[in-house]
Amino acid sequence: MKKQVLRLALLCLGFVVAGWTLNAFGSGSMGAPGGHGTTVAGVLVALVVILLGAKIGGACCNRFGQPEVLGELVIGVVIGNLFLVGLDIFEPLKTESVLEIFAEIGVILLLFEVGLESRLGEMMKVGLSALLVATLGVITPFFLGWGVGAWFLPESSIFVHIFLGATLTATSVGITARVLKDLNKIDTKEARIILGAAVIDDVMGLIILAVFSGIIIGLGHAGEGLSSAGILWIVAKAILFLGGAILAGQLAYRPLFRIANRLRAGGMLLISSLAICFTAAWLANLVGLAPIVGAFAAGLVLDEVQYNDLGMAKKQSLAELLRPIGLFLIPIFFVYMGLKVDIRAFGQSQIIVFALILTAAAIIGKQASAFGVLGKGMDRFAVGLGMIPRGEVGLIFANIGAGLSIAGQPVISPDVFSAVVIMVIITTMITPPVLKWKFSRNDKA
Amino acid sequence: MKKQVLRLALLCLGFVVAGWTLNAFGSGSMGAPGGHGTTVAGVLVALVVILLGAKIGGACCNRFGQPEVLGELVIGVVIGNLFLVGLDIFEPLKTESVLEIFAEIGVILLLFEVGLESRLGEMMKVGLSALLVATLGVITPFFLGWGVGAWFLPESSIFVHIFLGATLTATSVGITARVLKDLNKIDTKEARIILGAAVIDDVMGLIILAVFSGIIIGLGHAGEGLSSAGILWIVAKAILFLGGAILAGQLAYRPLFRIANRLRAGGMLLISSLAICFTAAWLANLVGLAPIVGAFAAGLVLDEVQYNDLGMAKKQSLAELLRPIGLFLIPIFFVYMGLKVDIRAFGQSQIIVFALILTAAAIIGKQASAFGVLGKGMDRFAVGLGMIPRGEVGLIFANIGAGLSIAGQPVISPDVFSAVVIMVIITTMITPPVLKWKFSRNDKA
Repeated sequence: MKKQVLRLALLCLGFVVAGWTLNAFGSGSMGAPGGHGTTVAGVLVALVVILLGAKIGGACCNRFGQPEVLGELVIGVVIGNLFLVGLDIFEPLKTESVLEIFAEIGVILLLFEVGLESRLGEMMKVGLSALLVATLGVITPFFLGWGVGAWFLPESSIFVHIFLGATLTATSVGITARVLKDLNKIDTKEARIILGAAVIDDVMGLIILAVFSGIIIGLGHAGEGLSSAGILWIVAKAILFLGGAILAGQLAYRPLFRIANRLRAGGMLLISSLAICFTAAWLANLVGLAPIVGAFAAGLVLDEVQYNDLGMAKKQSLAELLRPIGLFLIPIFFVYMGLKVDIRAFGQSQIIVFALILTAAAIIGKQASAFGVLGKGMDRFAVGLGMIPRGEVGLIFANIGAGLSIAGQPVISPDVFSAVVIMVIITTMITPPVLKWKFSRNDKA
Repeated sequence: MKKQVLRLALLCLGFVVAGWTLNAFGSGSMGAPGGHGTTVAGVLVALVVILLGAKIGGACCNRFGQPEVLGELVIGVVIGNLFLVGLDIFEPLKTESVLEIFAEIGVILLLFEVGLESRLGEMMKVGLSALLVATLGVITPFFLGWGVGAWFLPESSIFVHIFLGATLTATSVGITARVLKDLNKIDTKEARIILGAAVIDDVMGLIILAVFSGIIIGLGHAGEGLSSAGILWIVAKAILFLGGAILAGQLAYRPLFRIANRLRAGGMLLISSLAICFTAAWLANLVGLAPIVGAFAAGLVLDEVQYNDLGMAKKQSLAELLRPIGLFLIPIFFVYMGLKVDIRAFGQSQIIVFALILTAAAIIGKQASAFGVLGKGMDRFAVGLGMIPRGEVGLIFANIGAGLSIAGQPVISPDVFSAVVIMVIITTMITPPVLKWKFSRNDKA
């Protein structure tokens, strides 16, 4: 025990040294010839800090029986807020846009891996449950959020209250997917329902966001509002994308892989799969969905059993090939998420009460989704807990709200934005320990 | 055969469609929320284009028995110059700075892998040969380049001629390392000599560059020239780094890995190795060496046999874990290198003769290094051929020369720069087929 603490302390020391060098010679100041804003030297140090940090956090959480992802989030929060105690050596990390791209590709790969591990047929079997879970998990937090808004901000317009409700609807499935993977529970029926519901949820969130943004923009500029045809088009686009992607994938990927397989070149299986994953993620983004939804759909379509038939996976399966890339990139996403948390938000006493009630609405609202789970012997509570995290999706909603205004006032004022940030932090941070507790209780029972 | 052409055509079609979308919705225009210049959507499409392109090029080269890396370079040149025939759909790729970082990390990983496959002891055995090869491979092209400069540019200052000689000294080992890997020749004595010589070469190039830049800057500003103490310091720094890194690595990495091993967290072996590799690459950059030299040194230090003893590699060896990450990132480097080639340089008739003679000097000059190979039964010619490519290192030299001036005139004028670019393109592109030809002739003999 003593030895392990010493080891951890040594690793932390190396980590601080890396941070110091990052600050002293990092982004921008060191010159890779060419003179771009982002230098490879800066990125290298940033990667070392983030990867070491992720492992330190993960190892600490492992010691206390918590999912590693919690440690990655916490270490991110710690790194991101050291400037509050005067230690600003890690500040350059926050402005390193390349890291953000690495992080985004990391979470895309995570959902691709999760999609690969899920079977389309199995997903379809829980389709109705997922639809009900998603619907309840959107409607309840929406009205709860609306209510909290109306109660706390009576002087604001009804649209502010509605928008506040809308920010509570989204589910950020990255955290839950990672926890389920860490706990080896990704292959359960509950996991499939959560994943399916999160995809449907994203489509619903997209529609809600489009509708309310359209209405609010329409309030300001008469005639420029969103027509019902426009709303229908958004809905149609999203559904067409998901249906089309799965159908096209089912039809096209066998010939595609057959082509790829005949073209002898190193790493064909890995590269063609990555190309399919990235294309799907990009297409999802194009129709306004989260890129991770596309990556998940791509993973669903690429069925391991089938590409084995095509003679692609001679030595290593696709999942094995993807694992090291995921090990490298996925922690970057979670540390980066933690990094963006400014814990000063918790110090603003005038909004902390509002924030906590909003958080309660967000958590309780998603528990209603548990009633959407059909069938016997299912752990409804676990599904409800898995739907809790809002992650970056909630922030994106709030961000858009902050950019819209009614009668010169932003729909989401800075104070309300801080409250939303607190809600996102809490819902994101409590999910790993709570899910872990739920599943380990089940295993004992 | 017909079928394969059809398949290739189909893949190319998908590739053009990806390019079109890249242009229509790519970098900058598509909005990942947050409003950064580089969006994840743009990067995703760029990655799809580059990865598919690399595989198409690699597969074509495989058909004709050429190393895949040649195909990656050629496809890069093709993509990069399609704008000449009015097809500018791939132009956004060139300004995607994230791609450049991916490419740089790709080549860092390549040299790290090569370092892992080399044994420090084996490298030491050919140390004297490598030193002689490097020395001859620096001195001969240097004087040849000087001579070509004096002959073609008699009106220029002697420093211009010297600088031109200096641009011919560097060796870009990335290409050769990749070809040797593609041909399964990385474990030969010749390969070890080339790799060792390339590292020493980089140190020598660094010194030459520093010395001549110092002298030229000193010409302009009396008293600001490089002192001999300054030169000594540059030399000392480089040697200290390499020696220190290998020594420190030998002493420190066992305890480091032991710490890492006891901290239970997923992917510890991979992540701690990547952290060591990135740190070494960054340190090399810090002392003015190429990052790949640091990555190679890190790979040399991490000896597979030894970390197996530490109980790290339970399921997969480090080389196996790194392979997929390399498959993903390494082709990006070579396609990106091709992408930066502007073939219009070949159209300028007034400089093409000068460029071709410079290229001849560059190639012949490096053949002299073959005489540095000691011992019997060695393929001296193969070593000389392996030292040919100048790659990005030659361009970096020329770039620095273009930034220096004597009496108001840049040391490397735009015309001379174009000639250097042509020299770099030719030396880089001929190496894969020529090395392949040499080794397959040996195998037949």
